[in-house]
Amino acid sequence: MRMSANLSPEVLALLKDPKLLIPAIAQDAHTGEVLMLAYMNQESLALTIETGRATYWSRSRNELWEKGATSGNTQGVVSISVDCDGDSILLKVNQHGPACHTGEQSCFHRVIPTPSHKGA
Amino acid sequence: MRMSANLSPEVLALLKDPKLLIPAIAQDAHTGEVLMLAYMNQESLALTIETGRATYWSRSRNELWEKGATSGNTQGVVSISVDCDGDSILLKVNQHGPACHTGEQSCFHRVIPTPSHKGA
Repeated sequence: MRMSANLSPEVLALLKDPKLLIPAIAQDAHTGEVLMLAYMNQESLALTIETGRATYWSRSRNELWEKGATSGNTQGVVSISVDCDGDSILLKVNQHGPACHTGEQSCFHRVIPTPSHKGA
Repeated sequence: MRMSANLSPEVLALLKDPKLLIPAIAQDAHTGEVLMLAYMNQESLALTIETGRATYWSRSRNELWEKGATSGNTQGVVSISVDCDGDSILLKVNQHGPACHTGEQSCFHRVIPTPSHKGA
C-alpha cells in the first residue's frame, strides 16, 4: 500500500511526540470489548482519520497496515481519542469479523490466573 | 516503594520478551470504559498478580508505581489477560475514583474530530 496523508496542526498538537510510534487500542464500539493493541505513526493516524478505516504501522513488516486489508476483518472507525499526555490512542470501531488472527474475537484471550483477592 | 516479586514460569511463557516494558490497558470491569494505558515490567506485573492492585512501571520516574498509592484512586484487579503475541496486557479493574490525574474518569477524554464516514 502506498498512500500519503498528513495530520492537521490541531491533531499534531495533541501528540506528545509525533515522531514516535504510538500504541493504539481498538475497542468494539458496540460491546465495549477491547480487541487489540497495535501501533500508529503519523501517517497511519492521518489515514485512519481520512479513510475511516483503522490503519496501523506494522513493526514487524515495517509498513502501513490497513487492518483487514487481506483478511477482510476491517475496523470502521467510530471515534478516535488521545489520552491526557498524548502518548496513546483509543479507537472505537465497528469490527467486521474477528479482530485476532487466531480467529478469536479479541486478541486478549489468554487469561493469567490470579489469586482470590480479585477486585480488591 | 521497594517490593520484590517474581513471575511464575507459566506467566513468563506467555510474554514475547519479558525484558521489555509492556503496554497495559486498564478497562473498567463494570462499565467497559477504557481508562488508561501505562507500562509494566516483570516486577510490576508480578506485584499486580500478587497484590490484586494494579501496579505499573513509571517511565518518567523510573520506579514502580502502584496506581492510586498517593491519589487514593486505586485499581482493584478483576482479571488480567495477555494478547495473542504476548506483547500487551489488558487489566479489568474496579476503579476507585477517577483514573486520570486531570479528574476525568478516563485518560482518553480528548476526541479527534473525524469526517462523516464514521463507523464505515
